[in-house]
Amino acid sequence: MEDTKEQSKSALKKAEKQAKMAAAKAEKAAKQATLPVVGGKKTDEIIGITASKADNFPQWYQEVVLKAEMIEYYSEVSGFFIMRPATMHIWNTIRKWFQERIEAMGVEETSFPMFLSQKSLEKEKSHVEGFAPELAWVTKAGDKDLEIPVAVRPTSEAVMYPYYSKWIRSHRDLPFRLNQWNSVVRWEAKQTTPFLRAREFLWQEGHTAHLTEKLAGEEVLQILELYAGIYEQLLAVPVVRGRKTEAEKFAGGYYTTTVEGYIPSNGRGIQGATSHCLGQNFSKMFDITVEDPNEKGKHIHVWQNSWGLSTRVIGVMVMIHGDDKGLVLPPRIAKIQSILIPVGLTAKMTAEDKEKHLKQVDELFGTLKKAGIRIDVDLRDGYTPAWKFNDWELKGVPLRLEFGPKDAAKDVVSYARRDTGGKGTIPISELTTKVPELLETIQQDMYNKAESAYRAHRLKITDWNEVVPALDAKNVVIIPHCLVPECEDKVKELTTGRSDEPSDTPESQRAPSMGMKSLCIPFEQPEGLVKGETKCLNPECTRLAEQWCMFGRSY
Amino acid sequence: MEDTKEQSKSALKKAEKQAKMAAAKAEKAAKQATLPVVGGKKTDEIIGITASKADNFPQWYQEVVLKAEMIEYYSEVSGFFIMRPATMHIWNTIRKWFQERIEAMGVEETSFPMFLSQKSLEKEKSHVEGFAPELAWVTKAGDKDLEIPVAVRPTSEAVMYPYYSKWIRSHRDLPFRLNQWNSVVRWEAKQTTPFLRAREFLWQEGHTAHLTEKLAGEEVLQILELYAGIYEQLLAVPVVRGRKTEAEKFAGGYYTTTVEGYIPSNGRGIQGATSHCLGQNFSKMFDITVEDPNEKGKHIHVWQNSWGLSTRVIGVMVMIHGDDKGLVLPPRIAKIQSILIPVGLTAKMTAEDKEKHLKQVDELFGTLKKAGIRIDVDLRDGYTPAWKFNDWELKGVPLRLEFGPKDAAKDVVSYARRDTGGKGTIPISELTTKVPELLETIQQDMYNKAESAYRAHRLKITDWNEVVPALDAKNVVIIPHCLVPECEDKVKELTTGRSDEPSDTPESQRAPSMGMKSLCIPFEQPEGLVKGETKCLNPECTRLAEQWCMFGRSY
Repeated sequence: MEDTKEQSKSALKKAEKQAKMAAAKAEKAAKQATLPVVGGKKTDEIIGITASKADNFPQWYQEVVLKAEMIEYYSEVSGFFIMRPATMHIWNTIRKWFQERIEAMGVEETSFPMFLSQKSLEKEKSHVEGFAPELAWVTKAGDKDLEIPVAVRPTSEAVMYPYYSKWIRSHRDLPFRLNQWNSVVRWEAKQTTPFLRAREFLWQEGHTAHLTEKLAGEEVLQILELYAGIYEQLLAVPVVRGRKTEAEKFAGGYYTTTVEGYIPSNGRGIQGATSHCLGQNFSKMFDITVEDPNEKGKHIHVWQNSWGLSTRVIGVMVMIHGDDKGLVLPPRIAKIQSILIPVGLTAKMTAEDKEKHLKQVDELFGTLKKAGIRIDVDLRDGYTPAWKFNDWELKGVPLRLEFGPKDAAKDVVSYARRDTGGKGTIPISELTTKVPELLETIQQDMYNKAESAYRAHRLKITDWNEVVPALDAKNVVIIPHCLVPECEDKVKELTTGRSDEPSDTPESQRAPSMGMKSLCIPFEQPEGLVKGETKCLNPECTRLAEQWCMFGRSY
Repeated sequence: MEDTKEQSKSALKKAEKQAKMAAAKAEKAAKQATLPVVGGKKTDEIIGITASKADNFPQWYQEVVLKAEMIEYYSEVSGFFIMRPATMHIWNTIRKWFQERIEAMGVEETSFPMFLSQKSLEKEKSHVEGFAPELAWVTKAGDKDLEIPVAVRPTSEAVMYPYYSKWIRSHRDLPFRLNQWNSVVRWEAKQTTPFLRAREFLWQEGHTAHLTEKLAGEEVLQILELYAGIYEQLLAVPVVRGRKTEAEKFAGGYYTTTVEGYIPSNGRGIQGATSHCLGQNFSKMFDITVEDPNEKGKHIHVWQNSWGLSTRVIGVMVMIHGDDKGLVLPPRIAKIQSILIPVGLTAKMTAEDKEKHLKQVDELFGTLKKAGIRIDVDLRDGYTPAWKFNDWELKGVPLRLEFGPKDAAKDVVSYARRDTGGKGTIPISELTTKVPELLETIQQDMYNKAESAYRAHRLKITDWNEVVPALDAKNVVIIPHCLVPECEDKVKELTTGRSDEPSDTPESQRAPSMGMKSLCIPFEQPEGLVKGETKCLNPECTRLAEQWCMFGRSY
């Protein structure tokens, strides 16, 4: 190999370098001090989570995503986050699940450039108004100013649809469906939160075109059901399916359907993923037409959909399942479903006995791995079993298996569930059937627990005076509503700052007294709303209620 | 569903919209006219490729990638390309193949932000000098100027390594290996070409850290072998493995290994993919150290590698295998490996006979699909079999199966190979074994043909006077060389503009008389270079040759 250039460095250069290294070290120290100091120690030096989920939810969340090694804050540019392997495993599991299903529907993959020009963005007026404040503008390349600045895509309608106009030439090209997996940039002014609100995030965006409103509408719901499946079947997170109100729909779209989640710790609603029917708004602006198959010479503007699901799903999952020991992962998306830890290896044991025991551990590991369990074994020296237990609990591994000489004597393996802490033993002879069963039970129990919590905190309310107390008690509410945007603004105003919580709770720990906004019009409508009779619940609104609408404090 | 806003539009707005639509139509027409006019028709309106690969290679290539629907030019911003489903299938096949193999090596997946600040980029001097001229700078968000502008990553060393310094705390954390799949932006001033040189491209970038130079070096070669595997085993493209000279290595790295391809049509070399050992250059700048496991208290700067493979591979594959009928795809990466086309359905046949025949076609299709062949059937009405043949040939489908009443009478299916045009029949009873065999034969034959062409045009030369004639005859050359950067510059200068081609060839169709540059120092060194005796081949160089070095005109 060639010599490095190092060898010819002068003493002067060395001194320069030492100064640089000292600066880098100082920077490193500063970087490590992003979390508050607790009990004289920086909280990220303390093994385990220092904040309580119940008492300080925001700090708890920040600690969990950092210490479980899902996220790193990107200190170079604020509002950006690094996705670490623990996160990418989950995202790739979701990606694979969804990709298989949309492929079966006939959706094809594409990859469009990340930049768009002002011109194409401006074609749809409400669309550009919705995104303009958050656009990141590239104005220079190298040291030259660009003649025409370009923005990084916040979503790709305006990037893609000019080509739909070129590619869709006949009704035989319909349905025309493309999807891409990429990242988008929305330079949020609001405070960012890992996964939930970031200036760049990973997502998929599907963009399709159909001959009729009916066909487009069917696909909107098909995709929404897949989004619900990701939450419910993979992440063990319950969601409410519904339609967004006019005030909350996608900028430039026709209507938006959504799956809405709920965070029990603070009672906030959170938008899970959205599937939009764009109607003909974009096809008219971008001139996407086909000849009417039933009337020669007549041109039809196609009906379009767009739909997207982002890494936000992972944040919702963390918030719902995590506890004071750290992350709790549903088995179906956990990279390591089960961790096997040898225990009871005392100093008194002979080297021979230890070796024999570890050989048996290795056999158990091999057996379970072969049975298709995503299992790892923790043979790290210099750590006690208790320390290892804490470490894997912090990282959310669903099932811990322990194996000591006492277990060996009884031909069993001991286990501890991460979700409930429940413990027991499994005969070695039944391991390959019982472990998968147990993992599946954990998955179901996690979903059921979250589902009960959501159900118990989704209150149907018909008396306005009960609304704010319900919000303060960490509920979302379902109320009769007129669905008029101005009324939604009023509802938000009327519920802002009106927290009725006891005043001895310190301000920082109180449920936010932000106003509530509409989350969705649930597809499953409760009974009891009489069209033409029932009034909109807003006391200052004189209109009649159109539907039950779910409102809540929200992310 | 709610009413569209359309209904309330005034006549004035309608007129505005009509004007907009007319403008959009004009734009659409302009967009479609990106290819030259041939024989009074725009070339993209003509079915099939109009340019000959031998006579006008650049236009041939452009037509193939457009008409086979792999690429669309992105008219919004020049130098960018849209990857269409035909491309994404190939890229995803490569991704899956490579991902499985690096996962088995213990490489984990990550996703870092797309932006970096000037500060981190500047840490490694030659690195920043290498990339600065091509950086895209974001200077504005919404309508506000950013306090500190950020650049879109051209590669992620400077984005990632500050965190390696934080995450790698002990030699037990080594090897530390992360990979990400993303796109990077390099705002090239040079002319762009689909796949080969674009201002944004998809790639993977691996970044790893090791305890010793030896361990790092082993991984560099392991990865290089995977890159060679992608070319040879998936894309049927031969490559030469070697090391880059000092002049051509990665900016800021220690040494670069490469797989080098060759385009027979113009005799140019092309860099296939590179696997770099970064040495300790970056770990010193970013302060990435571990304690020496053999000497307490002593700190070692880790040895780092980075390695990347981009969508360029697809362009190389198109250039090598394509012909005047269009794309030719190797079966292993073709989305559609075989297309089944019913033939011989004459107007004289009864409707009943036709129906019976088409039912049999459908059965054949089902049988082959079930056997795991990626097959499609072309039942489009209103197109002749000949038109369909051309269409699927244009798109590169490796194997055409034809089935007509005459075939049915003999219980066979007729086939035509895309690569050689070779034809024959297969008994229906043997379809499920013979078709996979034939596909595998096509794959091998495509590789062998390309390998022979490369081998025949890689000339070992020891007489300087033979160099330029060899380049003009579309060869790359392997010559004894001193490996000194200044000598490479001189070699380039001496070979520039010295084309010895006959002067009656029009200038536009002559092999480029660009100077040659070093492609790599092949790992497989020819015989005949005596260290300390053999002279560097450059007649103006007085140094001794160090190794055989491959030079060529190149992309």
